[in-house]
Amino acid sequence: MTTSNTNEATGGASGRVDPAVRAELARLRDSIDNIDAAVVHMLAERFKCTQQVGHLKAAHQLPPADPSREAHQIARLRRLAENAKLDPAFAEKLLNFIIAEVIRHHERIADGAGNGAADAGE
Amino acid sequence: MTTSNTNEATGGASGRVDPAVRAELARLRDSIDNIDAAVVHMLAERFKCTQQVGHLKAAHQLPPADPSREAHQIARLRRLAENAKLDPAFAEKLLNFIIAEVIRHHERIADGAGNGAADAGE
Repeated sequence: MTTSNTNEATGGASGRVDPAVRAELARLRDSIDNIDAAVVHMLAERFKCTQQVGHLKAAHQLPPADPSREAHQIARLRRLAENAKLDPAFAEKLLNFIIAEVIRHHERIADGAGNGAADAGE
Repeated sequence: MTTSNTNEATGGASGRVDPAVRAELARLRDSIDNIDAAVVHMLAERFKCTQQVGHLKAAHQLPPADPSREAHQIARLRRLAENAKLDPAFAEKLLNFIIAEVIRHHERIADGAGNGAADAGE
């Protein structure tokens, strides 16, 4: 196993890698890039939804937190992950990661409206 | 602004919330749930790709890291996020979060094959 950090093996300038291997690597990376773009756009849409929830709750003095909703979300996501052969613990961590960003968004709404109430995870 | 933590406002047992507001909240939450399911399945597919990359690199003694590939990925994702009106810093943090999981996967491949070489982010 080489620990070299050069670019030679991964499509760089050097020609020492089997072209078939390089092509296969490029094919996989194209898929990864496509998926990343899809995820970014999905999350942009998700934040549009949570932003609407934030405004709705602020307008109707609804409580920010709904522990039962959040528990349901986590359980469902873990189940979905398991079915998709994804580590359920990772899916849960991911949801929590996104929730942290939603909270940041809601804090911005709160700064603007004096009320940023919304379920963090929604 | 209420700081109450009860369930009353978000579709719980109590009927004190305007049904139109409750319906709108349910509509938004359905969208959020749909998006979360899509993201989980996208990421399951992404991990299938990075796993293939891991095996490919291990089989051909390719170096695990490719800093130029990673820099390209980050720059591209930030650009995509900006266009989608998503915080580019969040997109970058998200990629790093996923990369950490990919590294965990590669460590498992390495444990099995004696060589887990693959770009972390791929």
